[in-house]
This record gives sequence, C-alpha cells and structure tokens, in this order.
Amino acid sequence: MNFEMIQAANARLDGHVRRTPMLSSPFLDDIAGRRVLVKAECLQHTGSFKFRGGWSAISALTPEQKQGGVIAFSSGNHAQGVAYAAREHGVSALIIMPADAPKLKIDNTRALGAEVVFYDRATEDRDAIGTALSRERGLTLIKPFDEPQVIAGQGTTGLEIAAQAEENNVENADVLVCCGGGGLTSGIALALAAKAPGLRVRPAEPSGFDDTARSLTSGQIEVNATTSGSICDAIITPSPGQITFPIMQKLCGPGLILSEDDTLRAMAAAFTRLKIVLEPGGAVALAAALYHPQDIPGDAVIAVATGGNVDAEIFAQVLQRFGTGN
Amino acid sequence: MNFEMIQAANARLDGHVRRTPMLSSPFLDDIAGRRVLVKAECLQHTGSFKFRGGWSAISALTPEQKQGGVIAFSSGNHAQGVAYAAREHGVSALIIMPADAPKLKIDNTRALGAEVVFYDRATEDRDAIGTALSRERGLTLIKPFDEPQVIAGQGTTGLEIAAQAEENNVENADVLVCCGGGGLTSGIALALAAKAPGLRVRPAEPSGFDDTARSLTSGQIEVNATTSGSICDAIITPSPGQITFPIMQKLCGPGLILSEDDTLRAMAAAFTRLKIVLEPGGAVALAAALYHPQDIPGDAVIAVATGGNVDAEIFAQVLQRFGTGN
Repeated sequence: MNFEMIQAANARLDGHVRRTPMLSSPFLDDIAGRRVLVKAECLQHTGSFKFRGGWSAISALTPEQKQGGVIAFSSGNHAQGVAYAAREHGVSALIIMPADAPKLKIDNTRALGAEVVFYDRATEDRDAIGTALSRERGLTLIKPFDEPQVIAGQGTTGLEIAAQAEENNVENADVLVCCGGGGLTSGIALALAAKAPGLRVRPAEPSGFDDTARSLTSGQIEVNATTSGSICDAIITPSPGQITFPIMQKLCGPGLILSEDDTLRAMAAAFTRLKIVLEPGGAVALAAALYHPQDIPGDAVIAVATGGNVDAEIFAQVLQRFGTGN
Repeated sequence: MNFEMIQAANARLDGHVRRTPMLSSPFLDDIAGRRVLVKAECLQHTGSFKFRGGWSAISALTPEQKQGGVIAFSSGNHAQGVAYAAREHGVSALIIMPADAPKLKIDNTRALGAEVVFYDRATEDRDAIGTALSRERGLTLIKPFDEPQVIAGQGTTGLEIAAQAEENNVENADVLVCCGGGGLTSGIALALAAKAPGLRVRPAEPSGFDDTARSLTSGQIEVNATTSGSICDAIITPSPGQITFPIMQKLCGPGLILSEDDTLRAMAAAFTRLKIVLEPGGAVALAAALYHPQDIPGDAVIAVATGGNVDAEIFAQVLQRFGTGN
C-alpha cells in the first residue's frame, strides 16, 4: 500500500468520481473559533466517499474477475458504492448487510441492482459469511476497508483535500476524518503525507466505538466492547484493519471521541449553515471541529463530512431537537 | 445589459464566489424518465445564488459609493447575499425585509453585520421605503433583480452551467430556473445564448405567483393578484422587471407552474437523493423536472436549485410528510 496506488486509482476514477466541494460558513467559523473547511463527500455519487473505493477496486479487477461478479459486506455505504460501481462496470454484485441497517441504505442497494443477503450484527460473523459465499459462488470479495485498492480509492479524497486546502491558503491544519475501519483515514493520510505534509489526519469516532483512538494510544489493535448500539451505523467497525492501522499509527495524530448529542448537533449545523445532509456517522468529524475546539490546534481545521445516507424520520427528529446547531 | 457585463462580473467574482457542483442521481433520472442535472446554488455562500449579484453590484461601486454604504430590500436571500458581500468589502448595509420573512433569514442578515428594517408585505411598498431611506441617508440602492450589475452577477451561474453541461455531454436541454423577478433567469439566459445555444432557459414559478409565465404568454408584464400567501417566500415577486422581462421574452421558453405539494416533494427528493437542503422557492425548478416530465422535451433536463435557506421546523415537516420524495 503506497502513494503511487492512490495516484493510479485517481487516474481510473477520473471522469467517474465527483470532485466534491470544500464548503465553509462564517457562522461555523464563529462556533469553532477558527476557520472550518468541510470536505463534502456526502455529495459524492451514492451519498458517501465509499463510491471511490468501490470504483477503484472494481476497475482494477481482471476481465475474468469482472465476469464472475463481486461480493461485499457493509452496513450500507460501501454496499451502495460497490453496487453502483459494479452496475456501471456491468458486473453483478451480492451485498451482505446487517439486518438492522437503515432502510434507505437497504432499498438503495437493491435499487442499484445488487442482490442483498442479511446477517445479524450481534450474533453472526459477516467476514465468515462473506468468505463462504464468495468461495461457493466464485465471487471476488471487495472488503470494506482492509484492501489496498479500496484504500487507494478513498485516498483520492486526500488528493482533492490537498489541492483545495492550497486554494484556501491553508498550509497547516488538522484534518478530521470520520473513522470506522480506517480505509478513508489511512488513504487520506497517505495522500496528504505526499502532497500536503502540513496537514495532519486525525480519526474521529463515536463514544463507545473508539477502537482506533485507543489503538493509536496503546500502539496495538484494540477492539470495541460491542458491535451495535450507536446511531453512527456507518462507522461502528469492531477494530482498525491489519493494513489500515500501521498506516494510521505512522501518520495520524490522536483520535477524537464524540458524544451522540454533539454528533446530532453537527448534523443540524451542517443543515443550517452548509445546506448539506449528513448522516450521524458522517458528522462526527464536523462535531469535533465545532464543539471540541480546545482539542484542536491552529487557525484552521478541515473536517471530512463522509456521508449523508440518513432516513428522513431520523433527520427530522434531529432538526426538531437541535434547531440550527448553534 | 449584455453578455460582456456577465464576463466582467465573472472576473470580479473570481476567487470569491463558489463554483457550485452539478449534481445527479440515477434515482432522480428514474423519476423524471430522463437525465436530470441539478445546479446546486444552495451551496453558494449565504445559501443562495444571490451572493453572486450582491458581490457583482458592490464590487462595481465607486469608492465614494462604497464609503456611503448600501441599502437593499429582500425577503431574505438577496438580503444575506448583499450583507455578506458588503461586509467582505468593508461596506455598511441596511436591509429592508418583510416582517413575515423566515426567521433564519432575518437572523442571518443581522449576524452578517447588516442593519435590518421591516415592512408589511401586504400593505406597504418596499420600493418606496427603499427609495426614501436611500435618499435620506445617502445609501446606494442594490435592487434585487432589475439592476444590470445584479443580473450580470447572477448570469455567472449560466457560464458555469454551460461548462458543466459540456462536461456532462449535454448539448440540448431545457434549463429550468426558479423565477421571482427574473434576475437569475435573464442572466442565465444571456450567458447560455452566448455560450451554449442548445440550452433553453424556462422560468419555474409557484402556482398563484405565475406572473412571468403569464407575461411570456401575453407579451406584456403581468402582475400577481396577491403579494403573500406562498411557502415559496423567495420568489413571490409581484411581476418581472423592466430590464429582465424583455430579455426573458427574447430568450426563454414557456414558463412552468408548480403546486405546493410538488415543490415540497422535490425538497424531500433533493434531501434523499442529492444530500442537499433546498428551501421551497429553491425547489420549484427541480419539482418541474421530476414531476412534470410531460412538459419538458429531450433526453436531459437541467434544474437550478437556487437556495436552501429554510427553517428547520418547516424542513422537518416536509420530510415527515413526503419521505423520500419518490
């Protein structure tokens, strides 16, 4: 896994991925007490950065692998990213999803042409199910994060951040990334180490699912106590990956841990001030930027808003509870 | 008023305006039965295209005019656009707003440093109030639409649409624009006539406030029967302007008229499929693209999503009522 793979993925994604905007608002700057730049990956195809990794992995398959079809396991964003990228490549896709995934994510994955198989997040091992089905049907497994071509695809976000930070005259800043298994976090870290060494990546995680923060502190891979029970369904992966963790250990600053209330309030702030829709798991980085300013150095901070696939009822509740997010 | 003024405004806006993305979703294409491209001006600074016109007008003032300050009347989006552009230029701003403007727009206009004066939309004439105050205090009036430098600023949206349509291989399409007084509509029409003559602008208006559609049909400026009573507060201007109407008459196709239900449903669809926040007055063009396909020709349509300044309570109600917008 290296920077050259990110550059190669970037070439394969050219013309297919959306270069998402870097947004800002003087109102958010006032809340945070410094400039806040928000990389709006919720505006990516399928509503999250996962399309990048899906496209990168599928576009790198051999013709034989493409003909055989792909399989992925995911709570919903990787599912949609892989399903859409597969459809655009004319490749069939089987997606294994937790039975409690948000309805919108399940519906979308099916509507994008994928076959969906469910598992129980609390009692079943999705890796084992995925491995068995992929052997049985001759499918190529596209892992959600611990897979070099997926990390390379997510890392293209970092190339854009480097360019957009320069456009905004930001040379030194923390780059906060909503972190599950670390595919996006490690990919961005590799890209920034090469292109913008003054930008330091830091993972942001929900309280109770701070495996990456704890792993960075202890120096070894730590595991969450539970595998369900957070509203941040997109990023409650049990632990960082065998490939992603060493990269994060080498390149990332300390993790940030967010309460559910701060996360939901950040969704309201993004609604009011940026006019974008964030899902809870896509809002933890912005929550850290806005409501934990004492944990962040410098005059500017960059938050990656990773996804927006949230059910309408939940979003409505968040707005009613938190208003403008001030 | 001519194309060269739009090019000049574009040069003054360079580095200050946000080049907003052209978004799309296969789900929206399915609803409309053709490709739908959405120009997301809700992601512009201050949450609407109005920042373009505000910046264009203020950047074109003489040093003496800048020192004297500016005045504007607006239901809220022009107010914020002018207030923010004025603040960035170090110019003081007085904004005249209807007393029933959305709270968010009033709060934001004040927070951006402007002084706010209210009037009654049903009984008072905002033009008369604006003219009197501007004389009394020596302020330069920045009209909301019937002002060449404002039209030139809004027209820069059309330059971007021309380039983005080409990137998307769209040569012939209707370009639907949410229309109040016609500043944005006429500006985009002028830009596209010069840069992408296969793209035809059509105004989209709320039912009961279809002054521009009727004016285009009758060949003379028609006036709405009422001046309040629509949820689309941003675009219930009484009639097209003396400058904007002749441009629209020459360059635009027939108007489209949208029900409140279709408009609110389009807000839900934009939430679910594009992850953007639209206000009612910013969603009528998308509503036409999605739910009136029989009134639109061709394989593709472009809808300009003009603004996203909607109160959280209203947006929550829309989501609860219309779900995914399918």
